[in-house]
Amino acid sequence: MKNLLKENERLDDLEINNLKIIQNKNEFCFGIDAVLLSDFVNIKKGAKLIDLCTGTGIIPILVNAKNELSYISALEYQEHMVDMAKRSILFNKLENKIEIKKGDVCKIKDSYKQQIVDVITCNPPYMQVQDGIKNKMENVSIARHEILLKFEDIAKASKYLLKEGGKLYLVHRPHRLVEIINTLNEVKIEVKRIRFVYPYKNKDANMVLIEAVKGGGSFLKVEKPLVVYNENGEYTEEILKIYGKNNRS
Amino acid sequence: MKNLLKENERLDDLEINNLKIIQNKNEFCFGIDAVLLSDFVNIKKGAKLIDLCTGTGIIPILVNAKNELSYISALEYQEHMVDMAKRSILFNKLENKIEIKKGDVCKIKDSYKQQIVDVITCNPPYMQVQDGIKNKMENVSIARHEILLKFEDIAKASKYLLKEGGKLYLVHRPHRLVEIINTLNEVKIEVKRIRFVYPYKNKDANMVLIEAVKGGGSFLKVEKPLVVYNENGEYTEEILKIYGKNNRS
Repeated sequence: MKNLLKENERLDDLEINNLKIIQNKNEFCFGIDAVLLSDFVNIKKGAKLIDLCTGTGIIPILVNAKNELSYISALEYQEHMVDMAKRSILFNKLENKIEIKKGDVCKIKDSYKQQIVDVITCNPPYMQVQDGIKNKMENVSIARHEILLKFEDIAKASKYLLKEGGKLYLVHRPHRLVEIINTLNEVKIEVKRIRFVYPYKNKDANMVLIEAVKGGGSFLKVEKPLVVYNENGEYTEEILKIYGKNNRS
Repeated sequence: MKNLLKENERLDDLEINNLKIIQNKNEFCFGIDAVLLSDFVNIKKGAKLIDLCTGTGIIPILVNAKNELSYISALEYQEHMVDMAKRSILFNKLENKIEIKKGDVCKIKDSYKQQIVDVITCNPPYMQVQDGIKNKMENVSIARHEILLKFEDIAKASKYLLKEGGKLYLVHRPHRLVEIINTLNEVKIEVKRIRFVYPYKNKDANMVLIEAVKGGGSFLKVEKPLVVYNENGEYTEEILKIYGKNNRS
């Protein structure tokens, strides 16, 4: 393939079905959060899915590798990320399975019709603009901070895109959870299943995996803790299994 | 002390400061939840506290043993529980420290003035009336189910009783957490610190400890998982320590 990689870009192996992904070392690169989210989802055969804030396209690529979906579209705002994600899709010969769209979550009606999907996935910007010190590189900053969109915009877009009973999957930071629950409640999307990710078994949670249902009732399941490292700083068995699943598929 | 115990009642040792508590074997008896809640609280010296739905009075007795408070009052609706709690207070010679009141959380203005405390504790009925099969004994049923009061009533009473910046401590079931967060949000009490209790490290959470602040901002801390039993079905070190704290005090 000609012009696969541009300056500062590299081709990373996803260790599943020989899939590869293009990433730019100066940009936001996918991490364990995308891998955990794509393992956490529970998707029925033939379902239709949209991934919001797709970035490199990592989540649709991983979710497609492990589920049989009838429609996958992924939305990204930043032009150069759209271009990079499209090249990853082409390289993996997934252009008939996964569509990458340039578009704005805040103007979701410009990109999609209403109530067209069963599942939304999203690994959104974690931090509010006032949080911490912003990364000096503007692009990384957009991916990490809510400069271009707030969580409220994701909630509203999800309400618009999901069929009744459809599921929204998120990976986020625990410190935002109360706000996430309240914001989703306002658009009648109910958080139903949660799993906290603890870096070590004796440390506070630093990630949370969320399943929410449009029009769902109020019964929450808090799943067993997901611990990332053991006392020796090595991945726990479960994390190895999640990565291992990828290897075996 | 004459007439300390009535029919079916027993005197249980709290294993802290030689404290004892009267319980009726046919009634709701305190469990690990009350012990964990009284360990979870973070109370400043000289603070004023009200315990809602106090039952046997277990929480104020334990909290008083581990903290220096300037005022402790405990509210209970069922007359015979009020009577039993009062006898426990007298037996432990705590009548100058802890006041037991008969009163209704739904009519909180009849029992207390507004904004008088820094801390509320509450181990409320866990189950909604439609949940599961109600215990045949009416009194146990009242303690376990929201027959007499809904979580909304506890939220409103807490808003009324707490000073601005005051803290509400709850132990509850995780399946109610989304509803709890939303209900507290409506009365401007923000959940700020949470700890999930997992019976085993590979099981779903079955209890949640909650600290919420009246007028607090939206930043949540999800503390390290609290696991109750190890693989052999014995209490974990941390649980032993929490009970052990009681022994050492």
